[in-house]
Amino acid sequence: MDNIFRILKSDKTSQARTGILTLPHGEVKTPAFMPVGTNGTVKGMHHTSVAEIGYNLILGNTYHLYLRPGIEVLESYGGLHNFSAWDGNILTDSGGFQIFSLAKLRKIREEGVEFQSHIDGSRHHLTPERVVEIQKIIGSDILMCLDVCTPPEISHRQAREAMEITHRWAERSIRRWQELEDFEGQLFGIVQGNFYEDLRQQSSEFISSLNFPGLAIGGLSVGESPEIFSHFLGHTTQFLPNDKVRYVMGIGSPDYIMDAIANGIDLFDCVLATRIARNGAVFSDDGLLNLKKAIHEKERGPIVDGCSCHACTTYSRGYLRHLFKCGEMLGGMLATEHNLTYLYNLMERSRQAIEEGNFTQFKEAYLERYYGK
Amino acid sequence: MDNIFRILKSDKTSQARTGILTLPHGEVKTPAFMPVGTNGTVKGMHHTSVAEIGYNLILGNTYHLYLRPGIEVLESYGGLHNFSAWDGNILTDSGGFQIFSLAKLRKIREEGVEFQSHIDGSRHHLTPERVVEIQKIIGSDILMCLDVCTPPEISHRQAREAMEITHRWAERSIRRWQELEDFEGQLFGIVQGNFYEDLRQQSSEFISSLNFPGLAIGGLSVGESPEIFSHFLGHTTQFLPNDKVRYVMGIGSPDYIMDAIANGIDLFDCVLATRIARNGAVFSDDGLLNLKKAIHEKERGPIVDGCSCHACTTYSRGYLRHLFKCGEMLGGMLATEHNLTYLYNLMERSRQAIEEGNFTQFKEAYLERYYGK
Repeated sequence: MDNIFRILKSDKTSQARTGILTLPHGEVKTPAFMPVGTNGTVKGMHHTSVAEIGYNLILGNTYHLYLRPGIEVLESYGGLHNFSAWDGNILTDSGGFQIFSLAKLRKIREEGVEFQSHIDGSRHHLTPERVVEIQKIIGSDILMCLDVCTPPEISHRQAREAMEITHRWAERSIRRWQELEDFEGQLFGIVQGNFYEDLRQQSSEFISSLNFPGLAIGGLSVGESPEIFSHFLGHTTQFLPNDKVRYVMGIGSPDYIMDAIANGIDLFDCVLATRIARNGAVFSDDGLLNLKKAIHEKERGPIVDGCSCHACTTYSRGYLRHLFKCGEMLGGMLATEHNLTYLYNLMERSRQAIEEGNFTQFKEAYLERYYGK
Repeated sequence: MDNIFRILKSDKTSQARTGILTLPHGEVKTPAFMPVGTNGTVKGMHHTSVAEIGYNLILGNTYHLYLRPGIEVLESYGGLHNFSAWDGNILTDSGGFQIFSLAKLRKIREEGVEFQSHIDGSRHHLTPERVVEIQKIIGSDILMCLDVCTPPEISHRQAREAMEITHRWAERSIRRWQELEDFEGQLFGIVQGNFYEDLRQQSSEFISSLNFPGLAIGGLSVGESPEIFSHFLGHTTQFLPNDKVRYVMGIGSPDYIMDAIANGIDLFDCVLATRIARNGAVFSDDGLLNLKKAIHEKERGPIVDGCSCHACTTYSRGYLRHLFKCGEMLGGMLATEHNLTYLYNLMERSRQAIEEGNFTQFKEAYLERYYGK
């Protein structure tokens, strides 16, 4: 199996690297942020607008898509690309995280997981094998293994047991994936281990040994402090092979992303950028701005000078504030486009700093201004 | 004063006519539907998308804009065009209808109207003169006179008294408007008279005598049956001068629009097209479709074959249904664009039928299919 990931440049001052990820729907430059389209739509955006920003890899959610529109509907359309008119790459998470955070009455057995839909209470049973098959029907370019997600502050024994099931499910997942024919989607393994250093090491080494095309770090960014996040990210990454593409799940604020890049992470996703946008919070180099604040009432300038999004090239902060004060859809639409544009450009700036071999300097200057120091 | 309206062609089989309305921000072909942008945004649409459909005249709402963002903010931006980045024409209603339908504790006196904001309960006092001045600050291309709106089923005496205040306010409005300097916005008078034939005639004749650049028919489409609407529309229009542009307020469904065009109306507006769109209801030649229905689940075709909107050129009915079932913003965005595109194209078809001298035939064939006969 050829490696789908090629490192272009490694930073001298950190673990950061730039690379090219080759997927069925085209190449992706890394480090890359991936916008989240839970239900097969990035909330408030046309797919063409997402692509125009430069994105070529977005997320879909297996749990949500499995429940609605359902696998039968997706199959009838030949998969999510065709159904949602998105020509770029799609990564689907396995649904593990959603089953543990959204579904009701879940039961984990060796065989798989039983749960009740958060939408209509209907009962479902999913196995690691079935989750791979579902992602094939979705037509995912990157598939994720079903895993057992755990909250912070559980015991070492509970964390170990969850990790061990995750490992056995990973083996079953890759076996099922290897049997699939006429399918180019790439299966990623997920490292778990909660907030225990020995388990994180064990899980990193075990998941790495299974020879997945890519490796993900799960179970971080679940409410822990930035320091704990950063510590466990670095601790986990050191046990992952350097040549495999690495994905840390569920981070999306500029400061966390900077930290992840410095720790050698290539891919990240989060609903944060799009969720806070719908509430009027937008990214800038000077930190998060709340467009609802009275200070913007007569402000004629854009959110960010020089930003190429429609919000910044066409509208003033004052008009955007007005839209949010009135609860107008256009506010969320424009702020979403801004935040996704901002993160895309931040990735370009990061890649450039890595190419120039000074990512740590870039990161420190960026964070100093971001935190308003 | 030159007439801002030029009739191009009068239909032989009905009162319908095509024309050109010349306004400060360009010419408008009539009959024309005007999308509603209450708060200075057509809900769920970029202004560029509204213009791309072909629209060059949209509505803003004086009552809403006066309360939020407020006149001081609009003045600081040099008006609504600049504030909202819309280069086409804007018609603002006077706020009369909203004061009567939304505001609390309103009191009508000869001098003007007192009311409490529906947003924060603050007290306001508006006179006909002030409403003209506010619309100048907004930068409206078409201004409307403050009028007294009445519900159906009031007594003849109540209807007459409301009409008489409306008439005196119309005189005060046009006087104030004529005093304005360096302002090209055109003031329209509003005919009232409730559902009384004699009052409608009196009001039509009186408002026409004041020599407004355009004439509007208010107080219809307030809950009466289609037959009553049509009767009073025809009854009122016969007393209006043929050469003035005529606007009937608050109608927006294809069947009502057909009726209005046949009665010699040139302009109409309504929130219907955009409001129902956000709930999954879309226009087609075969009537209103509800995209939430299960019948669309695996439907691969567009809402309307040959429609040029993004919903129809890019997405299937099945995907649109999925968006509405999930409550996704993109559903409302796409359906809104479809409904506005559909109505724009329906106006083009209507204008063509009038040019060809067979509007009645076109209307009857259209309505037969629309009602599914």
